[in-house]
Formats: sequence, structure tokens, C-alpha cells
Amino acid sequence: MSRTQRRVIAEMLRSTQRDSEALPIERMRERFAAMMSTFPVPAEVRRTPTALAGRRAILVEPMGEALPGTILYFHGGSFVLGSPETAMALTADLVTRTRTRAISLDYRLAPEHPFPAAIDDCVAAYEELLDGVSAAGPIAFAGDSAGGGLTVTATLRARDACLPLPRAIVAFSPGLDHTRSGRTMRTKAEADPFLTAEGMAHTGAMYLAGHDPAQPLLAPAVHADLTGFPPMLLQVGTNEVLLDDSVRLAARARDAEVDVILDVTADVPHVFQAFAGSLEEADAALDRAALFLRQQLASP
Amino acid sequence: MSRTQRRVIAEMLRSTQRDSEALPIERMRERFAAMMSTFPVPAEVRRTPTALAGRRAILVEPMGEALPGTILYFHGGSFVLGSPETAMALTADLVTRTRTRAISLDYRLAPEHPFPAAIDDCVAAYEELLDGVSAAGPIAFAGDSAGGGLTVTATLRARDACLPLPRAIVAFSPGLDHTRSGRTMRTKAEADPFLTAEGMAHTGAMYLAGHDPAQPLLAPAVHADLTGFPPMLLQVGTNEVLLDDSVRLAARARDAEVDVILDVTADVPHVFQAFAGSLEEADAALDRAALFLRQQLASP
Repeated sequence: MSRTQRRVIAEMLRSTQRDSEALPIERMRERFAAMMSTFPVPAEVRRTPTALAGRRAILVEPMGEALPGTILYFHGGSFVLGSPETAMALTADLVTRTRTRAISLDYRLAPEHPFPAAIDDCVAAYEELLDGVSAAGPIAFAGDSAGGGLTVTATLRARDACLPLPRAIVAFSPGLDHTRSGRTMRTKAEADPFLTAEGMAHTGAMYLAGHDPAQPLLAPAVHADLTGFPPMLLQVGTNEVLLDDSVRLAARARDAEVDVILDVTADVPHVFQAFAGSLEEADAALDRAALFLRQQLASP
Repeated sequence: MSRTQRRVIAEMLRSTQRDSEALPIERMRERFAAMMSTFPVPAEVRRTPTALAGRRAILVEPMGEALPGTILYFHGGSFVLGSPETAMALTADLVTRTRTRAISLDYRLAPEHPFPAAIDDCVAAYEELLDGVSAAGPIAFAGDSAGGGLTVTATLRARDACLPLPRAIVAFSPGLDHTRSGRTMRTKAEADPFLTAEGMAHTGAMYLAGHDPAQPLLAPAVHADLTGFPPMLLQVGTNEVLLDDSVRLAARARDAEVDVILDVTADVPHVFQAFAGSLEEADAALDRAALFLRQQLASP
């Protein structure tokens, strides 16, 4: 059954994406928001507008009593698209499974605000959460795609600023290399129903705004020293040009003596967890992510 | 706290191992059994002697109602040491956490019974379980060290014999390369408090008995095609010369479009899960293994 589920989803994505790089950015954003709004948000959460370090955010709380801790969530969208709303299904799925509140941040986007604006916003939001730490409890970072990349680069910046580090990092199909040097950029080009080298070059140029991508904050899978990092969970599918971003970051984590789980699901696309409820592997992956988050947030 | 736990365990192992390769095999077996008997077995299991395909085995059942399925467990001991008893703490820890029965097999050991006797016994036991499948329910393979290797090689043989495959594979610090070509054979030689190249050459020669190690059943991390394999979970520490065995097998699994989780805990030794109850990372890793097993055994 699930092989059929995997195929249906791949076809659906292939038919809706792949031609969007020619559109103006506002039209791309609308289209992305429309697509992401088709993913059902679990009813068992309470959503409250809030703000962190001057940026809009959404507090997502489980119904009933919450366990201690806060998941600071960074949405995906290639650093040019998306918002807390476009990742709300995923965020809420983590909240219900972990029974832990999340705050999803509306960080600034390129091209209006290129690198390193998004990272600046994520770190500022984290610092504000830390300042009110008794309310937040232990903090974990989670994110998908570009937001998965932000879980790593914000931690790099936090470490280098001598801030306390988050307890854990969970990244769904993170983008971790703006040099695009991963082998799977070529070997998975046909299998990936979602991302193309051309599309990524288009959005990547908006985010880079002329910066050299060969640096840790733009290509952590290639250039970052992860020494001191908290335990990490990287989940990725094999139908992804970004597969090797996670593979290489996991290798760097091992080399830096960091606990790291590289959790690969075969024959599923970019951020397949969004298909929770209609793809068994998505639910199973989210259940594993929730156990990992609870283990790290509960650890003394 | 846990960093202290990790250090204490490394020192303990360092002081008790490392000089055993000079001993006669019977003395090595006694010594291994004595060391492994120090790990407490959870009380909440029922152990019953049984047999599979003519080999002694132990049925390990949870108290209370068991969930459907059977974990076929293969103990560690470099193919020359060990028994279901020496791995009983680990086996029972999996049983209590999964609420699923396990059968731990007393496969034949080298030098009396070199390669491929152990694999023959594991596959024969699996076939007998399959023949009584209504009683066994869905079957998963689990094992540690050499037994982790057997989860993979028995699956290779089962696949090539066109048997139905196990639902899942869980391997704790598996030995997957008798060519010993992993980079960590050198880079982790000092960090590994347990295994040495010399000791492994000594026991490996007994198992090989002159066979060329450069073949899939003796070096699956280097030579096996894993096409068609069920979902795999590989757990390994960074203080292990065998770390790269798991790293390379995970890469082969990804290349073969197999679901694979490479779950690496930093600064812990070979089969650190045996320290459940005294090392937080051991309990956390076993909880993740139990969730994975239940996900696969419950999947339709």
C-alpha cells in the first residue's frame, strides 16, 4: 500500500512544481502558500499570534497540559517563500506528537532581505526566548528545507556568540549547501519531483545577493565545524537532490563527536513529513522525531 | 552527568578487555560470559528454553500481553564467543520496551564451526519460524556486534533464497567487514576501549578459516547489494573501530533505495546499549530501537 502512496505523491508534486522559477516572487509566494494550505492542520492545537525580537511569530500549543520545553520552528521556502502559516501542518504535527509548545518564526525573506537576515532573525528570536527561559523551558530547534538549514546555521551563530545551545536540532530535508556540490544534485535530479538545480539557482541567487557560498553559514554541510553541537536528527528522502546535504552534515557531526541520527526514507520526496495522514512513512517519521525531541527536552 | 557516565564506562572496559586474545578459546568464552553476566536482566520477562532448526534457543516473553510479532535475536561475540545468555540483558531490554517476544538463537561458533555455519543456523532458524508464521507473526531480526552482522548476512541469504524477508533489521554496533578496511579501524583504535585490530584478527581468522573475506557474506559493508532489504536501524558509538562498518552499510542501503536510520551516539563504546540503566544514552537508544521495531512490526 505504502509504495502506492509514495508514487501518488511523487506524481502530484511533479505536476504542480518545476515551472515556478519563471514567476515574479510575489506570485511564487502565493502559489507556495496555496499549495501548502492544502495540508490539513491537526485540530488539537491552539494557535496564538505572538512576536519574538520584533518579528511576527505564532505560538502553537497542544490542547491539554503541555510538557516542558519549546520548539523554535523555522519554516521552509528556499529563503524567499513561506511563513509560519505555510509550515503550520508540520509544526502542529510536531506539537501534538510531542505535547510540547512550538513557536514558529516569520523570519525575513530574500530578495528584500538577503543573507544573513534570516539567520539574524532566528538567533535574535532564540536570544529573546532564552531571556525568558523560565517560561520557555528547554529549547529545541526544528525546521524544514531552508528552515532545516536555519536550525544548523542559527546554532553555529549561537555557539560562536557563546550563547547556551539548544537542546536538540530536528531538520526535515534541510538545505545545507549553497555551493550545491552534493553528488545527489546530479544523481537525484530526475527522481526529485520538487526541486531543480535551475529553481534553486534562481532562489539561491536572491538569498546570496553576491555573497560567496563557500562559507559555514551558507554551506554548513561542506564548511561548518560542528564541535559542541547538541544531538541532531536529520530526516530526508532518497528522491531529493538535497539528500547529500544531510549525508554530509551527518558525517561532519560524527567527526565532531556530536550525537547524530541520519534517518533516510526511500522513495519519498522533499519534506515528505508534510504528507502525514496520507503517507504512512510521514507519520512514522514524525513519531520518531517526536520521541527524539522528548528525549532531548526531558534530559536533565 | 551523562558525560561522566560515558567516561566511567570507557575506563571500566579498558581495564578488563584488550589482553584476552592470548587466551585459549574456552577461557575467552568463560571470561566473556562472566563479564556479560554483570549486566542486569530486567525482571519483567519470562525465559523459556526452546529450539529452532535443531539449535538451542531461548524464548523471551514480556509479562502481560505481548504485541504481535517475533524478534529473532542474534547475540554478539566475534563469531567465537557468546550465547543467548550473554546477550540476555539486551534481548530482554528490547522485549520489555517493545512488548514483543524474542527468540535468541544459540548459533554455532568458530573455530569449531567456521563461516558460514553461523549464517546457516540463523537462516534455518528463520525458515522454521516462517513455517510456523501464524504463531510467530511478523518477524524482525535484531543483534549486536557479530550478531548485528548476522542480521544483515542472514537477510542476504534469505533474499537470495527467495524467502519472505524480515520486516526490519536492528543492529547494535554490527561487525560488517572482515576485510577490516574501514577508516575507523585506524582512527578509532585509541578511542575504542573494547576491540583491537589484533584481537579481531585473532578471532576473525577462526571464523574465516581461510575463506576470502572480500565477499558479501563476510564484508557486507563493502560488497553487499542490499536491494530489496527491509527498513534498517543501525546504532553505533563513535568510540568504535567498527563505526565505519555501519556508516558504509547505511550508504549502501541508501544507494539501494532501502529505508535506513544511522543512529550515532558520540563518545560511547561498542554495544553501549548494554549499559541500559546506568547510561542515559543506552536507555534512549533502546527506546528509539523499540519504537522503530514496533513501527515496522505493526505496519500492514
